[in-house]
Amino acid sequence: MNSIIDTILNHRSIRKFTEQPLIAEHLDMIIDAARSSSTSSYLMAYTMIGVTDPEKKAALASISNQPYIKDNGHFVLFCGDYHRHMLKANEQEKVTMAYNVQSTEYFMIATVDATIAAQNMTVAAESLGIGACYIGSIKRDLDLVSDLFDLPEHVVPLFGLALGYPDEQQEIKPKLPKEAVYFENTYKDDVAHKAALEQFDKTIETYYRTRTTNKREDSWTKQMVKTLHNQRNDRLTPFVKEKKFNTR
Amino acid sequence: MNSIIDTILNHRSIRKFTEQPLIAEHLDMIIDAARSSSTSSYLMAYTMIGVTDPEKKAALASISNQPYIKDNGHFVLFCGDYHRHMLKANEQEKVTMAYNVQSTEYFMIATVDATIAAQNMTVAAESLGIGACYIGSIKRDLDLVSDLFDLPEHVVPLFGLALGYPDEQQEIKPKLPKEAVYFENTYKDDVAHKAALEQFDKTIETYYRTRTTNKREDSWTKQMVKTLHNQRNDRLTPFVKEKKFNTR
Repeated sequence: MNSIIDTILNHRSIRKFTEQPLIAEHLDMIIDAARSSSTSSYLMAYTMIGVTDPEKKAALASISNQPYIKDNGHFVLFCGDYHRHMLKANEQEKVTMAYNVQSTEYFMIATVDATIAAQNMTVAAESLGIGACYIGSIKRDLDLVSDLFDLPEHVVPLFGLALGYPDEQQEIKPKLPKEAVYFENTYKDDVAHKAALEQFDKTIETYYRTRTTNKREDSWTKQMVKTLHNQRNDRLTPFVKEKKFNTR
Repeated sequence: MNSIIDTILNHRSIRKFTEQPLIAEHLDMIIDAARSSSTSSYLMAYTMIGVTDPEKKAALASISNQPYIKDNGHFVLFCGDYHRHMLKANEQEKVTMAYNVQSTEYFMIATVDATIAAQNMTVAAESLGIGACYIGSIKRDLDLVSDLFDLPEHVVPLFGLALGYPDEQQEIKPKLPKEAVYFENTYKDDVAHKAALEQFDKTIETYYRTRTTNKREDSWTKQMVKTLHNQRNDRLTPFVKEKKFNTR
């Protein structure tokens, strides 16, 4: 064990922050951590937009239905981005490039590039005592997010990171055990896989029954059935295509 | 600055490893780091498959056209996964769940979940002196990857991580500067964006002209035009859909 692994193992999402904005030096360090990330084919197919404008933060809080976004120290929107790559290309080159980046593969690459950067930013932030929470629920209205930040074609918002100095100490939420998420040389057979999940369900039942707040009766597998019965936002698929991603 | 940020800033991909397998304790620690990751709606929609079987490593090296995969200390395949979530559901529940997870949104969620875990594993590995390299090129033949590891429906391979004790010391490759990748409150206008890229092109021209090996004349924007003119693997889009991801 070392301090790095310790920081990663001690991760918990922070949703309550002091009003203090990020110290400028801290912000620069976590941006540098994000910029240092691995990238596929040197594409660096992502953009970060730091949000400090109180009106835009309020709008994001409302879109995401996460009020604490407007009271945090900082917010960073992560986007997949191929706009930049075409800026210096000629018109003919742009046509081919614009066609190619619309494949599923280039959509995956941009999503992976953006996420590696976001997780480096998160680990760097946590090492400085900054709390972080991924905000996937900006996807509830991507049209509005796009309008707010003037995103051109070939730029698609993926998720946000709420950042700030913590004003709470959350418990660490149990995660799937090694036996349920890490397999050796082949995918796990269903019988062993189910047994691992049943074991985890027992852990989770106890966790929900005994945690400090929001006690309830639930298990992981039951919760997943409920979650995956929720229809997600049907506007997302056409939105992504209108931004010229994932069309083919 | 602290040792965590230092580790992140000092990242370089390692492609030459000693033959030493990962120390069991190191492997457990980096798996735990991956397992501790943030996840959307508690889904943990990913699976890791550790590969030690020499024949499977050789097959992956051939698929990816990256010979060092067979000579590394370890390899981990990262997959998006909703198979697990349906294991304990009844037949009727499964139908609805299987339909829902085929949306673009759930495909993004699985890709993001897997990538956060992979980057936590990478940072944890580097903190232990283990080198790592993302292997996106397993996507050259996902049918074969799927066959190798017996992946069921609702499990899609995304990328691999080659891991091992480094047998080389690579230079750090320059990344896009803050001005080209981090914007404030709105997307950057094209004139300022282009100016930032021109500045970066100068850095890159010098880097390619003066680095220790593979010296050449190139700039980032020129390289991007070439890269995005490459047709990628046309089999990827239908493969992903056949695995019941991203169909709608």
